[in-house]
Amino acid sequence: MVVWSERMLVERIRLASKGSADGLITSIGDDCCEVRSNGSFLISTDSLIDSIHFNRTFHPPHLLGRKSIAANLSDIAAMGGRPRFVLLSLSLPEDLEWEWIAAWLDGALEILNEYDCMLIGGDTVKSKELGFTVTVLGEPVGDSAIYRTGAKEGDTVWVSGPLGSAGAGLALLNRDHLRQGSLDNALFDTLFKAHLNPVPQIALGMELAKSGVVSSMQDISDGLATDLAHICKASGVSALIHADRLPYLPELQTAANLLEKEIEDLILRAGEDYQLLFTVKKGQEALLSQLLQQTTPELVMIGEICSGKGVFLQKNSKVEEISFQGYEH
Amino acid sequence: MVVWSERMLVERIRLASKGSADGLITSIGDDCCEVRSNGSFLISTDSLIDSIHFNRTFHPPHLLGRKSIAANLSDIAAMGGRPRFVLLSLSLPEDLEWEWIAAWLDGALEILNEYDCMLIGGDTVKSKELGFTVTVLGEPVGDSAIYRTGAKEGDTVWVSGPLGSAGAGLALLNRDHLRQGSLDNALFDTLFKAHLNPVPQIALGMELAKSGVVSSMQDISDGLATDLAHICKASGVSALIHADRLPYLPELQTAANLLEKEIEDLILRAGEDYQLLFTVKKGQEALLSQLLQQTTPELVMIGEICSGKGVFLQKNSKVEEISFQGYEH
Repeated sequence: MVVWSERMLVERIRLASKGSADGLITSIGDDCCEVRSNGSFLISTDSLIDSIHFNRTFHPPHLLGRKSIAANLSDIAAMGGRPRFVLLSLSLPEDLEWEWIAAWLDGALEILNEYDCMLIGGDTVKSKELGFTVTVLGEPVGDSAIYRTGAKEGDTVWVSGPLGSAGAGLALLNRDHLRQGSLDNALFDTLFKAHLNPVPQIALGMELAKSGVVSSMQDISDGLATDLAHICKASGVSALIHADRLPYLPELQTAANLLEKEIEDLILRAGEDYQLLFTVKKGQEALLSQLLQQTTPELVMIGEICSGKGVFLQKNSKVEEISFQGYEH
Repeated sequence: MVVWSERMLVERIRLASKGSADGLITSIGDDCCEVRSNGSFLISTDSLIDSIHFNRTFHPPHLLGRKSIAANLSDIAAMGGRPRFVLLSLSLPEDLEWEWIAAWLDGALEILNEYDCMLIGGDTVKSKELGFTVTVLGEPVGDSAIYRTGAKEGDTVWVSGPLGSAGAGLALLNRDHLRQGSLDNALFDTLFKAHLNPVPQIALGMELAKSGVVSSMQDISDGLATDLAHICKASGVSALIHADRLPYLPELQTAANLLEKEIEDLILRAGEDYQLLFTVKKGQEALLSQLLQQTTPELVMIGEICSGKGVFLQKNSKVEEISFQGYEH
């Protein structure tokens, strides 16, 4: 086992953060880093704590490093922005293995590199509890960022891909972990990956922002029911979604049966799918597909924005309110 | 005892962060906050962990809230910047009293208000260990920020006020706490306050940046020996400082005697004084006092920049190297 010090880690981070980027004036090595944007900066910060936000027994450090960054990149995607810079604050127990830390950092640096986003600062401290705080800065690419406040009556509600995958993956991993590996990994591989290594929808977020037809957007981190309620509350509208239009992967039903959960519960209320949830301006639905020829995402229209308050689910002929029924971190 | 939820806390933070500010486009309530600067942003992030960076048995929450912000504001001061925006990530144990959290937050908001700095975002998570990560954004006020890299041979080395106060205050508080209150509080009040409620040198930092005569700067967070070594390493120079010029409060000697510590050790190696340490361009020392008529800080010239490497202390006729002998957080 390698004995490590904060100095070793800081040195590794310093090396990784060498290089130049448009707008980067000062990186690690001074009291502050210094950056310049062409317009505005979008900023998001998130903390992940061991045993609460992740489970080290089944989350490989390399993938956890990726996910710790991905969750923040997803917030930039949700505003229609391009990620630019990241600051990392690491709280590390002294008995944590260096190999684990190094693998976590490699994962974090790998995904940052994939999205052309630069590590420019941070902090490392000793602690009893393992935790990461990631702060990401991005820049809007359209005329402006896309906010939660712009949904209007008559707009349609869309999601960027299947829901419930990450929640099912986590539940299966928890169960698998407790039962010591009784699951068919190949069958549920996509669900596991949805939890362990989520993909932030950066390219799509930027395309949607540039399209000019999107009126509001956010990412699905707490579950569709809660996240759509955020948009509705911020915009002063309500939403009606249709149960039969909600997209999910075929293996989700098998997983739900195995887990003895309602599939609807996974789709509506499980968090961390990091799909984009957005509204398209009234009458511009047809334009959307024309404007997005470059990418081939599985965009699905799941409902519409109405007047009033709340999020409602229509299932067969019944309508029930489902606002704020998601996962609270 | 008030039972609290993350929602209560987030609601309180949301209320506190209402209002507008130049450059603030979107505050709390979306996936990201959004800000615009006239030029560049200076950014610093710091984590504070219970029992490592602070001791709740003698640190009142209101003052700890102030200090958690002050340490970051000091990083902006050290670049010659004006603080603008803050993001707070709070990791809170469930059994922490609401009164404690509310007092901490009041302290944090109080000092932010004093420096016209706005809380615009963050995160709250449950954890076993209490911790805070503060990210502050500032803007340079001079033609550019002041970096650690600009010190040149022939420049003089300055500090903005007495050293060792916070270190002595902490040692006395630790001792007092262990001995259950045997100290003369009135005598050491200034030392206690230096640890419990440090003052970031924001106004002075901005004046120094605007003066045009300062070649490098940083704040003293890890102790003079280590922090001056940072400047020397970044600038590719050495420094010679004179023991008989180092400023300290009269009660520091009494404290050192009581603590059975060398006073020189407190002055050179104790951290968290948050005084500014800076170099003045060769031959411009006289200009400095003229340019700083508005403020009356106790600026003291303690040495000079030389060629070579390292930080050296001259004491009587002896010279010893003291680089990197400070406190490592």
